[in-house]
Amino acid sequence: MSQPRFFVDARCSPGAEVTLRTDDARHARLVLRMRAGDSVVVVCDGAAWAARLSQVSANQTTARIDAMRAEQGGELPAFVTVLQALPKGAKFDDIVEKTVELGARRIVPVRCERGYADAGDRKLERWRRIARAAAMQSRRRFVPEVDSPIAWSDGVLLARSQPVLVAYERALSGTLAAALAKSQDGMPFAIAVGPEGGLAPAEVDAAQAAGCELVSLGPTTLRTETAAAALLVACAAYRGWW
Amino acid sequence: MSQPRFFVDARCSPGAEVTLRTDDARHARLVLRMRAGDSVVVVCDGAAWAARLSQVSANQTTARIDAMRAEQGGELPAFVTVLQALPKGAKFDDIVEKTVELGARRIVPVRCERGYADAGDRKLERWRRIARAAAMQSRRRFVPEVDSPIAWSDGVLLARSQPVLVAYERALSGTLAAALAKSQDGMPFAIAVGPEGGLAPAEVDAAQAAGCELVSLGPTTLRTETAAAALLVACAAYRGWW
Repeated sequence: MSQPRFFVDARCSPGAEVTLRTDDARHARLVLRMRAGDSVVVVCDGAAWAARLSQVSANQTTARIDAMRAEQGGELPAFVTVLQALPKGAKFDDIVEKTVELGARRIVPVRCERGYADAGDRKLERWRRIARAAAMQSRRRFVPEVDSPIAWSDGVLLARSQPVLVAYERALSGTLAAALAKSQDGMPFAIAVGPEGGLAPAEVDAAQAAGCELVSLGPTTLRTETAAAALLVACAAYRGWW
Repeated sequence: MSQPRFFVDARCSPGAEVTLRTDDARHARLVLRMRAGDSVVVVCDGAAWAARLSQVSANQTTARIDAMRAEQGGELPAFVTVLQALPKGAKFDDIVEKTVELGARRIVPVRCERGYADAGDRKLERWRRIARAAAMQSRRRFVPEVDSPIAWSDGVLLARSQPVLVAYERALSGTLAAALAKSQDGMPFAIAVGPEGGLAPAEVDAAQAAGCELVSLGPTTLRTETAAAALLVACAAYRGWW
């Protein structure tokens, strides 16, 4: 059984004392039944540290940092952003969970003509909780960000600063490899997935005008909730990260 | 809106009359509200045919085949088998759905030491229904098979006739590309995913003794229910199928 891991929002260094978040502290105390002196791993700013719980109480749970752990993996070698059209119901929950599990660093919900209504603050809070939990479960070293929803026309402007690969069912086989070949390994890039009903023609035009690349999603027809995770893996494989 | 598609278990040829399965017939009649004369696509043995409903009734719904459609895509260029350890609860449902969506041709539930109990006939029936529905939704041209569960020690013997890539968390980056490079594009291969708790040492030994390749699952830690779908996409990308 591997040691419990907790993301902390503090600066870590050997000897430092850090406070666990309230929900993590409750989980450590009531579910994992941990006590002062138990070993844990605390993760912050992309690094994992060996630590021991120094105080475990209903008010506050703290850990004292020992040394940095020489952990490999947990992150893709590039910062990957996922732009995802808002789908129906709770599908976005699964999309957040899967793309975080597969290494996404930032998830941006996008409003599209054929997509679903805007997400309120409660949903955003839930997606951030899911992202955090999935990051912990997948032994990530960063907690991926989940942005507030933006319009598709704003989302595609990310192509001004980095490659944006837009999943497009009518793109030919080979377009993904070609698009990835244009940018350097290790540089940030984004993938974008439209809604269930597909991107509207004006949205495809806007993406192309902004400099996005329309890329193939493989030989089978994918559901919108599968597309982002699958495209993320395909990019990682083409990059040789697997 | 694309035309409704139905898999039929009949021999198709121009002018032939084929009978829809009972569940498809009910769906066509009661949900899609189709009538005699309506256009449909019938799919059998890897080919799609243009057809028209010739009879729509509570007893029987038939279609008369017109001509073969020149459809591209819908299938990976190789027959891919998924060996998957039985997970807890309904996770296997999702695994069937996703791997079918991504192009798997055959799914074999596998019993592992740290996996879950055997699946009865009712579960097998459900997985086959899910596979069929997912294949229809993803515009596949074949209905993937779902086998009865077998033991891990029997599953790995598939390596006698084709490459079997076993997801292994401790495999190094690059092992997947190396394993795929050993076999020819278009030849059948299999991927194998162990249970949540990981493969037991004896199971890893059995896989290696049978000639399976232990391959990397990428830099992040994946849940068992994500692994098969992700590995399938990574293989497809390495093969250049995307």
